[in-house]
Amino acid sequence: MKPLILVTNDDGVKAPGIAALVEMVRPLGRVVVVAPDEGNSGMSHAITIKTPLRLKKIQEEEGLVIYSCNGTPADCVKLAMSEVVKEKPALLVSGINHGSNSAVSVVYSGTMAAAMEGCLYGIPSVGFSLLDYSYEADFSTSVIHGRPIAAKVLAEGLSKGVCLNVNFPVLTSEKIKGIKVCRQSTGSWREEFEKRIDPRGQEYFWLTGSFHNTEPEATDTDEWALSNGYISIVPIKADFTNFKELERIKEWEGQLTKNNHEATI
Amino acid sequence: MKPLILVTNDDGVKAPGIAALVEMVRPLGRVVVVAPDEGNSGMSHAITIKTPLRLKKIQEEEGLVIYSCNGTPADCVKLAMSEVVKEKPALLVSGINHGSNSAVSVVYSGTMAAAMEGCLYGIPSVGFSLLDYSYEADFSTSVIHGRPIAAKVLAEGLSKGVCLNVNFPVLTSEKIKGIKVCRQSTGSWREEFEKRIDPRGQEYFWLTGSFHNTEPEATDTDEWALSNGYISIVPIKADFTNFKELERIKEWEGQLTKNNHEATI
Repeated sequence: MKPLILVTNDDGVKAPGIAALVEMVRPLGRVVVVAPDEGNSGMSHAITIKTPLRLKKIQEEEGLVIYSCNGTPADCVKLAMSEVVKEKPALLVSGINHGSNSAVSVVYSGTMAAAMEGCLYGIPSVGFSLLDYSYEADFSTSVIHGRPIAAKVLAEGLSKGVCLNVNFPVLTSEKIKGIKVCRQSTGSWREEFEKRIDPRGQEYFWLTGSFHNTEPEATDTDEWALSNGYISIVPIKADFTNFKELERIKEWEGQLTKNNHEATI
Repeated sequence: MKPLILVTNDDGVKAPGIAALVEMVRPLGRVVVVAPDEGNSGMSHAITIKTPLRLKKIQEEEGLVIYSCNGTPADCVKLAMSEVVKEKPALLVSGINHGSNSAVSVVYSGTMAAAMEGCLYGIPSVGFSLLDYSYEADFSTSVIHGRPIAAKVLAEGLSKGVCLNVNFPVLTSEKIKGIKVCRQSTGSWREEFEKRIDPRGQEYFWLTGSFHNTEPEATDTDEWALSNGYISIVPIKADFTNFKELERIKEWEGQLTKNNHEATI
């Protein structure tokens, strides 16, 4: 029997990006989709704890079952694992996101949270994103170039606790130079809020902003790869510990314990 | 002039935990609070992009101004930086969370997302959590033991891109053995969903689960510290790159590029 592949996203079960993702992985296995019933962009790793979740089978055919869920991308993975699949999937793929999840965007991304959730369940997991925010984005190149990545992860797995953040530049297939395995750039967003006044005279704010690559010279980052015609792959982990800082502030243990002691005498 | 300290949380501006946090840091500086108008537990690093944000000043006195916001914890930090403070805060503190953010809980935590957001703005940032989920939790020990940690970070700063995840065990001040600077445990949640039927005969699900420490013998983790009477401090970073896996799969670059080439000829 072909391997089981779990598919989700954050743009919602009806987004063109998830249809492209199903097209990408369908030749590789039996596909189960559990995805949000509406857009969940910017939802990060949020989970739903105050309202109940609902699950609805919306399509079923040979080798493909699709469910929609009223929760977040992370909820979709949890609910799929608990209530939908009868065996552990051999692969989880999330996306294809309408818009970049390179650099610090990974922190806000529902697409990547779903991939991270998959790897917390021990499933080799990959999040895919295309650097085009529009609903009409052309995912055909992503399908072609993403399939060998999905097949590789399916065949070889990933190290424990690690998933992949894959971003595609907006280029035709012939113009893509290849793949770069790279680190997350330190680039970040400079936010601004657009202040408006509502018809009742009250202030409100819309989040806006622009991305700034703070290390344009570095050639080992996802930003560099994407700006130079490569597909970027960043291995990421749900263990956020920074071991360098851990070593540096280890001496605080004695210092702070001493301070507390002195404060109490 | 005393340093400016930005305070936020995920349990909402009226939660007892944030009042305790204000009490903790007020002797250290001028305090500005910008916190969600209602509970945002499990909201992770979500940002609000589809609905406008509103900000309301709800209290002002010497050395303390409090705003509530209808957004997520990450929104609160962004809005505070853009619309509220006139200078860069010398410290951001988030919490005190009602409940643990040790181990993998950091991934789902709105409290820690706010601290991470602070450090993305270059502010030395600390998230505090008490291992007691109840509204009536006693934060007095956290106030006493948290203040020297906040003072230390205010005085010395933290390395670029790093913030601290501080968890307090539920112990009286005398029983706390000290502080451990440690790594995030690999322990995780085993989720289950409680299935119910609504009055219209439709299924719905509530998320439940229990935490399992998958490495109880390891003595260098936050879980070990907390179980053994210590306050845990884990330095975390918004760069999720896993450099070990990056090295391991670097060879995929050539392999996958070759595969793609072969697939197209």
